[in-house]
This record gives sequence, structure tokens and C-alpha cells, in this order.
Amino acid sequence: MTKLQEIQKYLQEQNTDAAFITTPDNVFYISGFRSEPHERLLGVMVFKEAEPFVICPLMEVPDVQATGWAYGAVGHEDTEDAWDVVIKAIQRRDVTINSIAIEKSHLTVERFERMEELFENTTFTNLDHQLNRMRVIKDEDELIHLRKAAELADYAIEVGCREIAEGKTELEILTAIELEMKKKGVHKMSFDTMVLSGPKTASPHGVPGDRKIQKGDFILFDLGVIYNGYCSDITRTVAFGEPTEAQRIIYETVKEAEQTAVDLVRPGVMAKELDQAARDVITEAGYGEYFTHRLGHGLGISVHEFPSITGTNEFVLEEGMVFTIEPGIYDPKVTGVRIEDDVAVTADGVEILTKLPKELQIIEP
Amino acid sequence: MTKLQEIQKYLQEQNTDAAFITTPDNVFYISGFRSEPHERLLGVMVFKEAEPFVICPLMEVPDVQATGWAYGAVGHEDTEDAWDVVIKAIQRRDVTINSIAIEKSHLTVERFERMEELFENTTFTNLDHQLNRMRVIKDEDELIHLRKAAELADYAIEVGCREIAEGKTELEILTAIELEMKKKGVHKMSFDTMVLSGPKTASPHGVPGDRKIQKGDFILFDLGVIYNGYCSDITRTVAFGEPTEAQRIIYETVKEAEQTAVDLVRPGVMAKELDQAARDVITEAGYGEYFTHRLGHGLGISVHEFPSITGTNEFVLEEGMVFTIEPGIYDPKVTGVRIEDDVAVTADGVEILTKLPKELQIIEP
Repeated sequence: MTKLQEIQKYLQEQNTDAAFITTPDNVFYISGFRSEPHERLLGVMVFKEAEPFVICPLMEVPDVQATGWAYGAVGHEDTEDAWDVVIKAIQRRDVTINSIAIEKSHLTVERFERMEELFENTTFTNLDHQLNRMRVIKDEDELIHLRKAAELADYAIEVGCREIAEGKTELEILTAIELEMKKKGVHKMSFDTMVLSGPKTASPHGVPGDRKIQKGDFILFDLGVIYNGYCSDITRTVAFGEPTEAQRIIYETVKEAEQTAVDLVRPGVMAKELDQAARDVITEAGYGEYFTHRLGHGLGISVHEFPSITGTNEFVLEEGMVFTIEPGIYDPKVTGVRIEDDVAVTADGVEILTKLPKELQIIEP
Repeated sequence: MTKLQEIQKYLQEQNTDAAFITTPDNVFYISGFRSEPHERLLGVMVFKEAEPFVICPLMEVPDVQATGWAYGAVGHEDTEDAWDVVIKAIQRRDVTINSIAIEKSHLTVERFERMEELFENTTFTNLDHQLNRMRVIKDEDELIHLRKAAELADYAIEVGCREIAEGKTELEILTAIELEMKKKGVHKMSFDTMVLSGPKTASPHGVPGDRKIQKGDFILFDLGVIYNGYCSDITRTVAFGEPTEAQRIIYETVKEAEQTAVDLVRPGVMAKELDQAARDVITEAGYGEYFTHRLGHGLGISVHEFPSITGTNEFVLEEGMVFTIEPGIYDPKVTGVRIEDDVAVTADGVEILTKLPKELQIIEP
């Protein structure tokens, strides 16, 4: 069943006449068409019993068709009212609309008031839960994209490690990584690439800058790419020159915490059990106060999506869920270390999408 | 009068008890605090007669204070209900709320329904128009940031021109520009930098890639930076080696169109007069079908903001408005050329913020 068919089935089950999907990520999820319309109207209108259509800026209609979307695509010009175009497209379908499911977490009050005017005596229900429920489980096609995005992220870290040299700046290394990614066909990183060195590894708000790499530094890479619309997100921390004992202990503690959480992943486990297990390792080693964030977050079309892997979330894992596991210790007197993998829940355990080794890598100066 | 005081004055004039401002750009505009909260609640609550406060994720409260915001800042943790924090902050101020102005073009239905529950018997009015009205006129402080952003954009183009050499790829040039910008302290470009060469200059959807620069190419740069929260946006097109006569004619036509529109800018002129004047130059030269977009767009905290400079917009220019002027000709058989400046309307004319010359620059191979 396609994502579109799942929405149609939901409308039939709920006896709801239409769904209007407006989050750009969800428009992509349902139609395959990716656009950032800013203030312009973008959406997919799905019906219980009629052909769906995409509404988008007129100049993007060919782009919708180019994605393979086999249904209607109607465009609006900047000089016309986009809702007129929507209403006409509905009228051509000869359907009766008494109820519409909308994304209440995305649709603005302005657009909702307009819809209330246009669709009189119509009930508006909330589609958010259904879309979250669908998106949290990745199908095999989505996993293929996520695996490839993770593979490219692995490679990006390898590029970064090769670039490390005494006197090079964080920004020079970052730029070399992003250039190589562009050469591999990556148009967008999934967030601002982070390359932090020395004391900056311990700063959660650190921004890559002109600091020059020195012997004895730890270097923290946190980055990801977007591949066919799906995100990766990886962190590795490496040593430039022989680490001190204190640095080594922090590294090994984070590595053990990360592996402990990864090993627990399987259907039926609660999100909070993973966070607690990793946190216990770090707390027992005496670094609890330096692990200041949640363990991880869902990953897919958005780089941060449902579910959140926190110490209180009782959400139960199921096959097909994909998320990050990324414990860290940020000791301002020694170093910061974070290790992050992307993992998928399988029928009976875990698939680790990011494959880069986690043994402490020591780069010789 | 500060932006905050302008909102307070508006509330007094409208006899509205409070304004809840939630667009990240507008939160920055009013408070000086910049954040991308994703799904978390971020806002500024301004009252007719009480101390305003910022609501944000707890870990960002120190960042709010660091901006110099002299009023309240209340934080919410991921594990608590952010609205409880809002309600308590209001209760501490001992104000009566019978009416709240909201940003209907931004607030989601989900949040609005929550507000309707929490604030019973309250009227909700629309703050959008007031905020647009304020933001479209830039004050002297804002102009200082916009001038500096434009100066950095000028420099970025100079860097790009220096990097041009036979066999270099678009991506290599792009990467060199962005690296140099990072060295200058620019953390973010205002949009994805565009470096297009040869036939790709004529493609409006072009993406910089591995194409190697060749003698006879035109190279089109379109880029901008964010400086202190304010955006620039510049385009220059240069020749690598002696241009053909056909290329030269297109260049000179775009240059004349651009200058014609710039020269018309002054208070009292309508946006559409600028678009029409530039378009007339291009149409009379026989290239009308190849100028496929509007003349320009407002520029400020957002890289595309109010007003839109189109052939139908009768919006009347006033002192302090800042926008782009960017005509182009995209002839697939010859070349694409676009020239773009950022301009500010002054008391009696125009200030051109981007200062880079517009004479055709020929780079010797």
C-alpha cells in the first residue's frame, strides 16, 4: 500500500471526505514532490473517493509531474487567489465535502479561517496523529534512502579525518568535507556541519571557526546529509596525537554508553530504557552532570522527528523505527566527546545504519 | 521609539490587552533574540500595561538575556507544558486579558485552539498587518546592518571573480567564497549560494555542480549573507574571456534595465512602475520572453519579505523601504545574465547598498 493509499484508507475508515496535507515534509511523503513554498500555498488534497491533487505555485507544476505523481497538479500564479484554484479543482471532481482532516500542528489560523469560510457546514478533524503514526515506521524503500544517507555521512567523517593536520582551522576542514559531499551529489547537508576542536568540543553551543588544530586536541564531527529526501546524522570524536589518560577514560565511557543503548534496541523496549541505560553508564563513571541532553531523536524526512529518546518517554519501539543514539560527556576541564549512530529497529533487534568504527581513532600529527 | 514600544502603543490605541508574537523573525525583531525552536513554543508576550516576557526553551533563557533584552524571559523544559509557564508568567503580572492580538499568518490551529481553551471569553485579533507595516520601514540601526550585509556580499563576489580560472568547477569557486565568508565571521549565507557557468546561466533552476569553467563562459553569481540578523542578496554576471557580440548585447540590455529601475526609486512611486520600466527596456530590445520573473522583493530580517516588486503591485514606496532590483535575460541559445542590487528608499531618492560596479567585467583567461 502506498502512503497515499494509507491516507485514503484512513479517510474511508473515519468516514472523512478529504484530507488537506500542508507540511512540506508531509507533502513530499505523500506525493514525492519537495518544495519550500514560503508564503505561497502548497498542499495535497486527498479524497475518500476521488482523484487527489497537488496545489502549488504554477511554475512548479512541471516539477510535480517530473516526480512521477500520477494524479492532478494544479498551479496558482502570484497574482491570483490560490483558494479559487483549489475550489475549482474540487468542483471538477464532483465530490461532497462535509468533513476535512487537516494538519492542526501546521495549518495557520489565517488559512484555517479561510477554509471555514469556503467550506461551510464542514467539520475539521486533526490528521496529525495519523501522519505521525505513518511516518514513524519506515518501509523498505525509505530504509534504502536512510542507509545511503548514513553511508555518505560515514564517508564525510572519513574525509574530515583525512583533512586533519596541525595548524589547519576547523572551517578549512568543514569546507573540505562539504565540497567533497557536493562532488558526491549531495545538494544539502541535513543541518549545519559541526567541526569543533580542543576545548570547543566541550561547548554544546560551539560554532566552527578559525581555531587551529593542535597536537593533543580531540576533534568532534557532527554532520549529516540529505539523500533522496532522507536525512542522516552522525557524530564521531577523534584524537590528534596521543590522548591523555583523562581523555581516554571519557572516550571509553561514552563508547560504552553508546554501545549499551544500541545493544538494547529491539521491538517492545521503551524509549526511556535506552536513555536510562546509557545515562547509567555515564553516571556510574562519575560524569553524569556532563551528559546534558537527551539520548537521541527520530530521523527520516526531518532530521529531528518523532520519537524523542528521553529518560521519561514511554513510547514503545516497533520494527521500522529509525532514530539516533548519541550520548556525550562535555567536561570543560578535559574534553568533550560524543558518539552518534543512526539505528533502525528490526524484527528482532537493531540495524546500525552508520557503519564507521567507534574504536578511538588516533591521528598521527 | 523601540519596536517593543511601537507594539505597546498599538495595543493602547486598539485597546487590546496583549500581543503574542510567534514568528521567529518577528520574535527577533521585537526582542533581539534569535532562535529556531522547531516544535517547541517560542514567543514574546507584550502587554498594554505590564512588563513583556519571552517564552522559550529553558536552556535558551541565558541566550535571551545575553541579547540585552531587559524584561522577563521564562523557560520551559521538554517534559513540561509550555503553556503552564506562560499562564504563570501572566498571573505574576496581575493583568486582565480580554483580547489578544496574534499572528494569524503564523500561529497554528493547534496552538490557537489551546489558547482559546486557556483564555476563555477572549477576543483574538490579527497582528499581521501591524507587524508588516513596521517591518517594511527600516530604521537607521537596521540600515546599518543591511549596508554591512551588502558590503560583505560585494566582497563575496570579488572573491568569486578572483577564483575564476579555466578548468575550475562551479562548486570549487562556491566553496572558496563560502570559506572566505566564514573567515569574515559570516555564520550563515542568506540562501544557497549560486555559481552557474556557461549554458547553466540560462537555467532558472540551475544548481552549482561539477561543470568546469571554459573560455567564453559567462559566470553568474547570486548570493547573500546574514549580518547581525539582516540579509543581503546580490547578483553579478561576468565574462571569462572576450564575450561574443550577442552576449554583450544581452549584458548591456540587462544593465540598462536595472539602472532604469534603480533611477526611478523614490518615495511616492509604485512598485509596479519599477517592474514595468525595467521590463520595457528588455522587451524593446526583443528579449521580453526571456525575463521570466518579478523585478525584486523586500529584504530585511527575511531574504524575501514584503513588498513584492511585480508588474501589478500598486504598493507605494516610502522612505526606509529596502528591496532588490534584479532583472535578467535567460536566452538558452546565448547566455543568461542577471544583475541585482539591494536598494533603500531615501527621503528624495535611492541609496544603493550594494556598491560593486556593473560595467561588464571581463576576466582574462
